[in-house]
Amino acid sequence: MIVIGIDLGGTNIKAALVDHEEGIVKKISIPTEAHEGKQHVFEQLALAANDLKASTNETIIGIGLGIPGMVELDQKTVNNPPNLPGWEHVNIAEEIEQRTGLGCMVENDANVAALGSLYFGIGKQYDSFITLTLGTGIGGGIIYNGALFKGTHGMAGELGHMIINYEGPSSNSVTTGTIEAYLGQRFLSAHAAELIKQHPENPLYQSFNDRFDELEPIDLTNAAEAGNELAKEIYRQAGQRLGYAIVNYAHMFDIRTFIVSGGVAKAGEWLFKSARETALQSMMLPYRTGFELIYEDLGNDSALLGAASLAFQSFS
Amino acid sequence: MIVIGIDLGGTNIKAALVDHEEGIVKKISIPTEAHEGKQHVFEQLALAANDLKASTNETIIGIGLGIPGMVELDQKTVNNPPNLPGWEHVNIAEEIEQRTGLGCMVENDANVAALGSLYFGIGKQYDSFITLTLGTGIGGGIIYNGALFKGTHGMAGELGHMIINYEGPSSNSVTTGTIEAYLGQRFLSAHAAELIKQHPENPLYQSFNDRFDELEPIDLTNAAEAGNELAKEIYRQAGQRLGYAIVNYAHMFDIRTFIVSGGVAKAGEWLFKSARETALQSMMLPYRTGFELIYEDLGNDSALLGAASLAFQSFS
Repeated sequence: MIVIGIDLGGTNIKAALVDHEEGIVKKISIPTEAHEGKQHVFEQLALAANDLKASTNETIIGIGLGIPGMVELDQKTVNNPPNLPGWEHVNIAEEIEQRTGLGCMVENDANVAALGSLYFGIGKQYDSFITLTLGTGIGGGIIYNGALFKGTHGMAGELGHMIINYEGPSSNSVTTGTIEAYLGQRFLSAHAAELIKQHPENPLYQSFNDRFDELEPIDLTNAAEAGNELAKEIYRQAGQRLGYAIVNYAHMFDIRTFIVSGGVAKAGEWLFKSARETALQSMMLPYRTGFELIYEDLGNDSALLGAASLAFQSFS
Repeated sequence: MIVIGIDLGGTNIKAALVDHEEGIVKKISIPTEAHEGKQHVFEQLALAANDLKASTNETIIGIGLGIPGMVELDQKTVNNPPNLPGWEHVNIAEEIEQRTGLGCMVENDANVAALGSLYFGIGKQYDSFITLTLGTGIGGGIIYNGALFKGTHGMAGELGHMIINYEGPSSNSVTTGTIEAYLGQRFLSAHAAELIKQHPENPLYQSFNDRFDELEPIDLTNAAEAGNELAKEIYRQAGQRLGYAIVNYAHMFDIRTFIVSGGVAKAGEWLFKSARETALQSMMLPYRTGFELIYEDLGNDSALLGAASLAFQSFS
């Protein structure tokens, strides 16, 4: 069974032929050229899809497209995608269908990542789980009984916007104290820099002294590995906050498997140990049964595998 | 169409014949006599149901039973109900079915309240909504596309346990800063008493001076109605906290209708105005469309109407 997965970015369109067992069979990338306008992007998308279609004798059952931003409940229409300014309300699936003769479904990147785990990752083993991508922002997707949980307008699962302390710091969000405001890459780094500045004796202070704006989570992870107690403490605190958010997700959805990926998640057990401890301490007893917090890295092709998974989910 | 609704309390078993259009047709109450043991309670339940069954010529399509505590995904088995000590794991539906010849389904009181609104309340007008009962504790139910959202083990929607400030006060919960720790009746009253004690000039201080433990939300509401600024401020703060919890529910489930009932909700607009303002300010833009926060009071029979609704949902 073979599909086309497309990752529509502001700069590049990546597309791949994907087999449900073998994974990515062929991969291409062409420029989005968003400045040339909507119609041109539709043509570029069709170009990529038709190129892949022409390269195989197998029957392609459909196209899955992943895109940042809001996708409506129909899984076809995007609404003001942040990296494609001026698009407003566009049935992008229909445009692709007309130009390729293939069925097409669209989902936002966070939901596509959850489907990627369901078809190609650890999620294969579960009917229901929640994915969290800890990157620049925090995105998430909810798989409930083998399908995406979408809510009434397709916008369920804004997991990064979970408020864990309404008196807490701001982020890009309209509100304060969201988990993203604590663990989003930039916010975590800024918070760490503040703490390090108070400890001039710390090796991290000496390393980043004149360039704290370049401090990244990977530097904290490296420092923790090298035995730096302050770096460990920063991740321990971050893990606690992640733990509180997870308690909220668990108590709301009664889903007990959490699959975490993304740059900040590369901290691994420095982050996860305290997240697990806090979650288990703060959950009501029955929810602790079967609770799991698992790291996953589907690599650079995760967006393409996710987009392909949307096609498998929709057309097989 | 007629069903039996049963409200199983620690002291009394209330039961009613309920018509889907007319509502309650006949109502009875008998003692639970829980101290006599499980088998006796099963007999009491059957007695109530068979009494109602004998009183009508119409065909009863089934029984719905509401009970505090955890009910499993099968909607038949209860797990350590708090007001029936020593019961542990009991398939109570089966016990009733064997003794009445009628199908029986069971749900916890918070979910039953949500179904009651769906069949007999404001919820009739909606496919998806969230109910919140602001009482001694805070319970809630999630109606999603016309049915209860149950989660993987039947325990989704522990809405009262939503952490809005992990640095906040404790409640009965295993964690801190839940919405229940702010708005549960006892916690709200205690918090109000603390504030009033700091204002000896306030009429509420003079009234409750030597008996602050008797202060109840209704006293605050009465004071607010009479123009007491401190009472208004207490509800304004409580409303903000409710607003943050609602933002979390909305961003997670993408459900936009909130139906609120219970003793604390009788404060009405003193509470709801700031809840709505905070929710609207702190929600991402698309979620504000169609957002509603509505007060509902189905009266003293709400538990029976809810239990009956479970039977309509399951057997019609």
